[in-house]
Amino acid sequence: MNKNIIAKSALIDENVIIGKNVKIGENTVIRAGSIIGDNVDISDGTYIDFNVIIRDNVTIGINSFIGARAILGEYLADFTVKREIAPHMLSIGDNSVIRSDTIIYGDSIIGDYFQTGHRVTIRENSQIGSHVRIGTLSDIQGHCEIGNYVNMHSNVHIGHKSTIKDYVWIFPYVVLTNDPNPPSENLFGVTVEEFAVIATGTVILPGMVIGKESLVGAGAVVTRNVLPERVVVGNPAKDIGSTDRIRDKETGKQVYPWKYSFDRGMPWEGIGYETWKEMDEEGKHSILG
Amino acid sequence: MNKNIIAKSALIDENVIIGKNVKIGENTVIRAGSIIGDNVDISDGTYIDFNVIIRDNVTIGINSFIGARAILGEYLADFTVKREIAPHMLSIGDNSVIRSDTIIYGDSIIGDYFQTGHRVTIRENSQIGSHVRIGTLSDIQGHCEIGNYVNMHSNVHIGHKSTIKDYVWIFPYVVLTNDPNPPSENLFGVTVEEFAVIATGTVILPGMVIGKESLVGAGAVVTRNVLPERVVVGNPAKDIGSTDRIRDKETGKQVYPWKYSFDRGMPWEGIGYETWKEMDEEGKHSILG
Amino acid sequence: MNKNIIAKSALIDENVIIGKNVKIGENTVIRAGSIIGDNVDISDGTYIDFNVIIRDNVTIGINSFIGARAILGEYLADFTVKREIAPHMLSIGDNSVIRSDTIIYGDSIIGDYFQTGHRVTIRENSQIGSHVRIGTLSDIQGHCEIGNYVNMHSNVHIGHKSTIKDYVWIFPYVVLTNDPNPPSENLFGVTVEEFAVIATGTVILPGMVIGKESLVGAGAVVTRNVLPERVVVGNPAKDIGSTDRIRDKETGKQVYPWKYSFDRGMPWEGIGYETWKEMDEEGKHSILG
Repeated sequence: MNKNIIAKSALIDENVIIGKNVKIGENTVIRAGSIIGDNVDISDGTYIDFNVIIRDNVTIGINSFIGARAILGEYLADFTVKREIAPHMLSIGDNSVIRSDTIIYGDSIIGDYFQTGHRVTIRENSQIGSHVRIGTLSDIQGHCEIGNYVNMHSNVHIGHKSTIKDYVWIFPYVVLTNDPNPPSENLFGVTVEEFAVIATGTVILPGMVIGKESLVGAGAVVTRNVLPERVVVGNPAKDIGSTDRIRDKETGKQVYPWKYSFDRGMPWEGIGYETWKEMDEEGKHSILG
Repeated sequence: MNKNIIAKSALIDENVIIGKNVKIGENTVIRAGSIIGDNVDISDGTYIDFNVIIRDNVTIGINSFIGARAILGEYLADFTVKREIAPHMLSIGDNSVIRSDTIIYGDSIIGDYFQTGHRVTIRENSQIGSHVRIGTLSDIQGHCEIGNYVNMHSNVHIGHKSTIKDYVWIFPYVVLTNDPNPPSENLFGVTVEEFAVIATGTVILPGMVIGKESLVGAGAVVTRNVLPERVVVGNPAKDIGSTDRIRDKETGKQVYPWKYSFDRGMPWEGIGYETWKEMDEEGKHSILG
Repeated sequence: MNKNIIAKSALIDENVIIGKNVKIGENTVIRAGSIIGDNVDISDGTYIDFNVIIRDNVTIGINSFIGARAILGEYLADFTVKREIAPHMLSIGDNSVIRSDTIIYGDSIIGDYFQTGHRVTIRENSQIGSHVRIGTLSDIQGHCEIGNYVNMHSNVHIGHKSTIKDYVWIFPYVVLTNDPNPPSENLFGVTVEEFAVIATGTVILPGMVIGKESLVGAGAVVTRNVLPERVVVGNPAKDIGSTDRIRDKETGKQVYPWKYSFDRGMPWEGIGYETWKEMDEEGKHSILG
């Protein structure tokens, strides 16, 4: 039985295929060529661009943007290999921007204010917090946890079993590996602690812990744990000192901890980390502001 | 003259374009928006997902899965640059899984049980054996030979003229180069011998031979041949010993040759390499199991 | 008011959506499933393959090829994030080949004889000269200048504020970074001078200048400026001598400056650099010949 509930204010182009038990909210737009599966819930104010594929059991929060040719709720191996149909839920939060050609599998939960670049791939069993941004071509292999306010730039590869905590920055062409004895079945994910920064082109070996507020320099190959507030560089990476020694070459000012000098997109934007932290401790707002 | 032969048990959605001299086998499925060219042969039990483009002269084996928006038989430069139409054949074997957004050119032959991740690109004149898996974003530049039971993880780049033999493992962000004097016209491909393992983020310089059962450590830049059963690491890569010295940190067991400890997806799965090898020598099964 | 001007010799498949104020030139082809926005100008002899999306305000020169599922004039953040519609122009020159799945944003100008591989992403405010080739998966982040006869191979990442001058070669998995104190707001782009060659898998740190005719070896991490006609290798990269010392291992001949030994696709093709240069100085042809 088909129980679709489609708001009268929704604008749906011709040549859109819509499945069963679909809810489409107020002021949504669905452009031509899109295909919507069964049990899909598209919330108010969301814009679905041309040729998007939304498979079964996908929920999208309000005021989101789904770019052309995104695939949401992509098939897992049970269907592609065995042609079995099993339900896999995908939930994407409010105010998200999924740019064109992004593929997100079923069996994942993603928070509000999520943004992707183009051609991002996110596999099953990914738990992603709020205010996370993942750049063009990045490849999240699934079975991983990503916190809040995490920023990944282009072409980042996050192996199975990785854990990335809040306020982490990962720059282009970084790989978090997981297999200490390749090929093997015993995978050990990398853990990246709060406020850590991993610069461009680094490889993190399996099971490593990248400490809180630490900095991994560009091109490093990290073969040992990185201690909190330390800088490592090189292949293999060596600890070259404390982050508090780094100065901006232009201004001479101390750069790290970066939370005191950078606020764009952060919950302390416009008020500074210290003021925000005081407010937070007084319970005046939540971490997800 | 159109001589299409379409099985009655085939399920073909509306809004599918089908060319001339097309064979579509029993129990095939072709979803909406797909475009099938001339002289295409889709074997029994194959599933073609939404918006796939299959150009002319493509053959797909039985029970295969072609993911959404794959392009099979992609145009070569004769068409894109000169707009000339010449036949280029593409053959993909039985039981293959081509995941969404993969592009495979004409003029290639691929064996059975082939699997790709998403957004894989495979150019012309690629000879690929059976039971090969190529991960998301990998870029096979063509004019190369890839054996059987080869596993490439995400974002691997295989330059022209590469030769990869059976049972090789290549991990993410590995590049096999080919031009010793860039830019030049004299390309020398890399050869990777049987059972070799190339770990994440390594660059192999032109013409290098990666020896049988060897291990290239993560982040290596390989400027000399790697001898059989040796481990190399670093930039530039240095030989640090025999693979037989490597122990699993958890179990203390010897890790390499990996064929004795790992069997998932291998022809010796469930019976062990030694038993399988004995059977093989007695002629009880073929290498392609 | 719709003032479309469509040449009678244009071949437009069924199931093509065409906007307002569109010009479609003589002998153009537009295949099924393509979507053409408003104020689009497609010049004579251009071929638009299946399922291409051309958004508003895009101009394409004569005899070009736009591969399947390319997106031209892709939305900027004003639309994806704020849902505001502002005009952004994209101009692509004559005789261009844009391969399938390429995405090019609005607010860019690209010269003649442009070629991309597959899945190339080019963001807003990119100024790109003529005879430029950008390989599969490359990611041009925008706000950058790229000269004439520049060749980028697969999976090259060009950060904001980069400047790449004429006749530069960049090989796979090279990243040009821009943030010396990540994360920060003060970006310093890399400058690559004429005839420089950057080999596979290198990372160039923010603000570096890669000198004229220099060679950056594979896998380098460049933390200092590279002087003209010098070779650097390693992590961190070290100057190991002048490029004029490099000999071809097969022929024994001097390799660099490469302009004397390599001419494919260069304006001196078939006549040699010196003859061409003399002709150029006599004003017999322009640099864009």
